[in-house]
Amino acid sequence: MLVRDGLRPFFLDARGLHLLDQRALPHEERWQLFTDVEQVAAAIETLAVRGAPAIGGAAALGMVLAARAGLDLASADARLRKTRPTAKNLFGALDEVKAAWSTASPDARLAAVVDAAERHVLADEAACAAMGTHGAELVKDGDVVITICHSGALATCGQGTGLGVIKSARAQGKQVRVIALETRPLLQGARLTAWECLREHIPCTLITDGMSAFAVERLGVTRAVVGADRIARDGSTANKIGTRTLATVCAAARVPFHVAAPLSTFDRSLASGADIPIEERAADEVRSARGMPLAPADVPVWNPSFDVTPPALVTSFITERGVLTPPF
Amino acid sequence: MLVRDGLRPFFLDARGLHLLDQRALPHEERWQLFTDVEQVAAAIETLAVRGAPAIGGAAALGMVLAARAGLDLASADARLRKTRPTAKNLFGALDEVKAAWSTASPDARLAAVVDAAERHVLADEAACAAMGTHGAELVKDGDVVITICHSGALATCGQGTGLGVIKSARAQGKQVRVIALETRPLLQGARLTAWECLREHIPCTLITDGMSAFAVERLGVTRAVVGADRIARDGSTANKIGTRTLATVCAAARVPFHVAAPLSTFDRSLASGADIPIEERAADEVRSARGMPLAPADVPVWNPSFDVTPPALVTSFITERGVLTPPF
Repeated sequence: MLVRDGLRPFFLDARGLHLLDQRALPHEERWQLFTDVEQVAAAIETLAVRGAPAIGGAAALGMVLAARAGLDLASADARLRKTRPTAKNLFGALDEVKAAWSTASPDARLAAVVDAAERHVLADEAACAAMGTHGAELVKDGDVVITICHSGALATCGQGTGLGVIKSARAQGKQVRVIALETRPLLQGARLTAWECLREHIPCTLITDGMSAFAVERLGVTRAVVGADRIARDGSTANKIGTRTLATVCAAARVPFHVAAPLSTFDRSLASGADIPIEERAADEVRSARGMPLAPADVPVWNPSFDVTPPALVTSFITERGVLTPPF
Repeated sequence: MLVRDGLRPFFLDARGLHLLDQRALPHEERWQLFTDVEQVAAAIETLAVRGAPAIGGAAALGMVLAARAGLDLASADARLRKTRPTAKNLFGALDEVKAAWSTASPDARLAAVVDAAERHVLADEAACAAMGTHGAELVKDGDVVITICHSGALATCGQGTGLGVIKSARAQGKQVRVIALETRPLLQGARLTAWECLREHIPCTLITDGMSAFAVERLGVTRAVVGADRIARDGSTANKIGTRTLATVCAAARVPFHVAAPLSTFDRSLASGADIPIEERAADEVRSARGMPLAPADVPVWNPSFDVTPPALVTSFITERGVLTPPF
């Protein structure tokens, strides 16, 4: 049932979890087969799968592998929770699966885990479709939409969050162009958004992250749509590093800035952005690009994988339940 | 006389123009010897030498090579003017040399060109020192200064413009740290600013361009200092692509944003930023990094080499004659 049409970051079958290694894109479409929860945890840590909703889906399906193998589910759950700290969806998905197995009888555990994981994946797919429907109402014919990182199908279990909104608007017949920020250091914009746009025939222009302010003026950007990894109660939004800079540029130019995220990305337990844990990654990600050295090997680096955009810079949140506008 | 102590992008001797190939930095210090003006023109076009004041100096010394070879100086001048369109200093330097040779008798032409070129280079060196003196007055002990691209010694005929100000402040005993934006696509920040800071023992942290807004908050940035390539009459400032985004971020956070540039960078003939010619370079500069492919080979790209920062975002201009503040 989880083998589906369209672009997906993974699917589960009787052999195991098949996962498209996003590190190899756009130059190679390399599918990997995982039968072991540790492999799934490593895939999340090394960004073979990334994007907050996709991480949640992969973790839920990783629990299916653990249940099939008869492993201790508490250990598998703990392992997956340690992979990455920022995306809320990871913890939400594992909470859902845990609620299923921890209350099931031993005989019913495997079925309970499979059901919960599948429900999670299908709910995310449906949330993407609903975000697309709500978000497309905001998008105008002729819009030039700037985006950062990758919020398309490969980042979710459905058509995408931010990029999904653009797909839905185009499905309504609206002409919409994408300006994709390359998104250093790991280049999810250059590698994944550009690739997915070409594949889906969405007109796309690739620029470097620093070009955003000039692009807003010279390329006639009318709107920004991005995804999110965790959203605090006040609307502070953790998303890929660079999002806050883009939001600042858009606010200065009065370009509407939309965050498309399922409710599973909202964390009601956190009051504000200062509470959101921000993952810092290895310095060599900044000192190099896809393995090519760029900088002196000994230069100090700061490499937060996410930043926090204050709610004052967000025009609206596009969720599966509708569009939220301030005050949040 | 033009062989000097300290870091320099080039020097002239009896053999010809020795030029440090900045494309090979930071991994290799490769000096090239040019005896021919065409080689110098190609070096400017391919960014073996870059930075507006350094381009001016290299062009002036290129004219010396042409004069030594007995070439037609008008042709040499025309060739050098075609190399890059944005930096004002290129045209100013060539104007100075042309004023010398076009009024000299045939016998005195070589000496006139040598004198004019040497005066230009020494004047730029002196301007850097004076900018440092004036700019250092603005810099406070403990400042954390963010910068983009490279405005150090290798970009000028002296100690640098933006980075020169930081050197002068540190020479006064002020503790100043640098936050260097890597400056995609050609990574002058990662390759050159990081290298020059390490060489000069200036504490430096390298970040990607998109990190600027989060860095201002989390790294405690107190000030920005950048160079410039051409400044219109209203203060609109063409500088390396990404500068306008950084200036927007600084304005939003009320971080002072200083442009350090010699008067040779100011173009009184242009009323506003819309009049500044902006060089667009090859798409593959964005699709790759130092030759490593990053993006689909067929994705459309926008690659302006410079952007224009509106004067409202500039706190002050640091020149060799003093600090200019609004209204400009």
